[in-house]
Amino acid sequence: MSPSPARVIAVDTYDIRFPTSRQLDGSDAMNPDPDYSAAYVVLRTDAADGHEGHGFTFTIGRGNDVQVAAIDALRDHVLGRPVQEMCDDPGSLFRDLIGDSQLRWLGPEKGVMHMAIGAVINAVWDLAAKRVGRPLWQLLADAEPEWLVAQIDFRYITDALTPEEALDLLRRGREGAAERRSRLLERGYPAYTTSAGWLGYDDDKLTRLAAQAVADGFTQIKLKVGADLEDDVRRCRVARSVVGPGVRLAIDANQRWDVAEAIRWTKALADFDPYWIEEPTSPDDVLGHAAIRAAVAPVKVATGEHVQNRIVFKQLLQAGSLDILQIDAARVGGVNENLAILLLAAKFGVPVCPHAGGVGLCELVQHLSMFDYLALSGTTEDRVIEYVDHLHEHFLAPVVIRDGHYTAPTAPGFSATMRPESIARFTFPGGGFWAADPETRKGKAA
Amino acid sequence: MSPSPARVIAVDTYDIRFPTSRQLDGSDAMNPDPDYSAAYVVLRTDAADGHEGHGFTFTIGRGNDVQVAAIDALRDHVLGRPVQEMCDDPGSLFRDLIGDSQLRWLGPEKGVMHMAIGAVINAVWDLAAKRVGRPLWQLLADAEPEWLVAQIDFRYITDALTPEEALDLLRRGREGAAERRSRLLERGYPAYTTSAGWLGYDDDKLTRLAAQAVADGFTQIKLKVGADLEDDVRRCRVARSVVGPGVRLAIDANQRWDVAEAIRWTKALADFDPYWIEEPTSPDDVLGHAAIRAAVAPVKVATGEHVQNRIVFKQLLQAGSLDILQIDAARVGGVNENLAILLLAAKFGVPVCPHAGGVGLCELVQHLSMFDYLALSGTTEDRVIEYVDHLHEHFLAPVVIRDGHYTAPTAPGFSATMRPESIARFTFPGGGFWAADPETRKGKAA
Repeated sequence: MSPSPARVIAVDTYDIRFPTSRQLDGSDAMNPDPDYSAAYVVLRTDAADGHEGHGFTFTIGRGNDVQVAAIDALRDHVLGRPVQEMCDDPGSLFRDLIGDSQLRWLGPEKGVMHMAIGAVINAVWDLAAKRVGRPLWQLLADAEPEWLVAQIDFRYITDALTPEEALDLLRRGREGAAERRSRLLERGYPAYTTSAGWLGYDDDKLTRLAAQAVADGFTQIKLKVGADLEDDVRRCRVARSVVGPGVRLAIDANQRWDVAEAIRWTKALADFDPYWIEEPTSPDDVLGHAAIRAAVAPVKVATGEHVQNRIVFKQLLQAGSLDILQIDAARVGGVNENLAILLLAAKFGVPVCPHAGGVGLCELVQHLSMFDYLALSGTTEDRVIEYVDHLHEHFLAPVVIRDGHYTAPTAPGFSATMRPESIARFTFPGGGFWAADPETRKGKAA
Repeated sequence: MSPSPARVIAVDTYDIRFPTSRQLDGSDAMNPDPDYSAAYVVLRTDAADGHEGHGFTFTIGRGNDVQVAAIDALRDHVLGRPVQEMCDDPGSLFRDLIGDSQLRWLGPEKGVMHMAIGAVINAVWDLAAKRVGRPLWQLLADAEPEWLVAQIDFRYITDALTPEEALDLLRRGREGAAERRSRLLERGYPAYTTSAGWLGYDDDKLTRLAAQAVADGFTQIKLKVGADLEDDVRRCRVARSVVGPGVRLAIDANQRWDVAEAIRWTKALADFDPYWIEEPTSPDDVLGHAAIRAAVAPVKVATGEHVQNRIVFKQLLQAGSLDILQIDAARVGGVNENLAILLLAAKFGVPVCPHAGGVGLCELVQHLSMFDYLALSGTTEDRVIEYVDHLHEHFLAPVVIRDGHYTAPTAPGFSATMRPESIARFTFPGGGFWAADPETRKGKAA
């Protein structure tokens, strides 16, 4: 009798919250006081190698417990799965999770339940990459196009992208990959920084951080806008005067506006030559973004961090709503769905500039952009990954930024693993930090 | 010193599940084995009248606990609110709930978190109507247009409907309301039935139930389709031959298809003169529905039960994706958001035919259609509310169907209150039914 294969023996979840609201880090027009948080999941197996799969949903505080409950609701689908089989074909688990008809009712494929699926699926990819001893970007870039296509659920997108077209894009995308890999390893992938531009920062801090960004080699920075037009005019003027005309200045309204207001406000800031306006209105508004884009050109329109799934991305592309598509590693259904979104962007010729920041989003999403460069888009022109210098110290393999570029990760996995001492300290409400916090002890939420 | 005003003193939640999957009631092409469930909330106050506000999210089994956790996450926003103030202006609480920036991150305005907001808001309307001793439809129909407009959050919809246009629609809508009220009280509001058409029923049961529906006075029935074309052809033929040419036959694919498949399949059933094709594809696919509608006319396109919020409904109307708009009382953010959706439908001249069934959805949504008739659309022509004869016995004031019409409810409130003994028996997993159930005791999910 052959020994039974290694299986998943535990799906452990953690409610981890960082008290970021106390410094106004991450403040914007819609999110004045975020406490960056992670609904965190660890897949443990009985394999001899001892590897674990780590994944998470990023949230901004309250409700992180709801997100943990949603991951818990997926546990029965994962427990007992043979590890090798699951890692050889994460798409099979993905289809089982989005196909659970009772859980599907809670979306479908959107919001809390869908993000929970993304956390679990990303944990599987982390485990799969660790088990083959490669960073995820490399696992993906080395994979056969046929296998990558089989990882994708084409339901509801075949009117824009068929499996055959995807295969063709991936086959053509591989040409010249070896040369690009050398360049990636040498130079990294371009980044831009949002660290200077939070709405809660005063002009002095903005000036200092914007100058620092240029000195650090960034060729694009981003400013939060949308709370007060007069303030925005002043802050854009300050930022533009600090960085000069050669650095791209993106602005980000975090969904603050209706369509007409977005057009008016963006035009009022046009003098400062904004490169893109990000999230001008609701992420659900495909037609609204198309109207805004038509009106504010040549300012580009960017969105995606809150776009719920591939179906809405498909329409944003079909309707011509976007100049820049911003994937997020932890909002949609994980790597599998992001593969579909990257392919849709490639089909429509729209550059992908990922959203990152928060907790660990930089760590995750760099892998997807590097795959995109090596095996699909074939270029980094007009492509940048967002970078924010928060909370990286909590990860075992944090991102490394060098001269305005993300350095290609070398550690096996998806760079998702948080330090055990950080998990212990920031678990809410029982971890060391929160247990000692007077506000938490008074019974207030984080 | 004046006595302090009555306040909300408890927000109690219940995970209630009914074992409907065991009879294949409610089976369709996407949902083969639903266990109709309610994430149920009761607002208790210290007012002398003893009234409670009841509300719920309808789910189909697994994940009902996640939905309960989401309602729990809203508790701090509601506890301690002055009851009179809250009931005088539910819109104020609605804006606070959708405006909680940390919780908003989990949507925004979609999925688990948004449905939880809907449950709480609907409970407030139930309480408000009980306190004034009127059924909700009457409270709404009697309300001043200015007050109704103030109940609506126009964010993200002003490009399609302004507050001024809404006010104008409501003012015009009132004309002739007294006469319509008499007609409503005498005749009720037209219904159609889905009870015959579940996918899990064999042809004999379909024949028997379809004949019964016609005998009961229904002029429209609905069949589930989308699993197997040959079966669908046979079932449509059976149904059409039973009901004859004078009864409308709607078909419902429950999101089963991609765009091209939806067109092909619907055309293949056109011989049986289907009145509408419902949910032909993903509820997120505004452009897909528009393409399907253009291709399958004169068969009408209907959707809405899974449409996440007013922003997607706005676009479905803007893009010409719909002939029939199907509101659901418990998927969006409660009565306040449904007022916005009814007004959008009125603005675009699209008839509203609500989704109902499940647990208590008939009880709730009848109030919204009756308001629509009395104070907005002014007609019941081409308008029907779905009716399914499941689980009504668990409600204190169940719907009353007479000659194919919903009778106008007379009991104060939103008809949302479940019998205490039903709550006790079907609370999962500790209630009497589940505790005695061998499957549950083996540790399996519902």
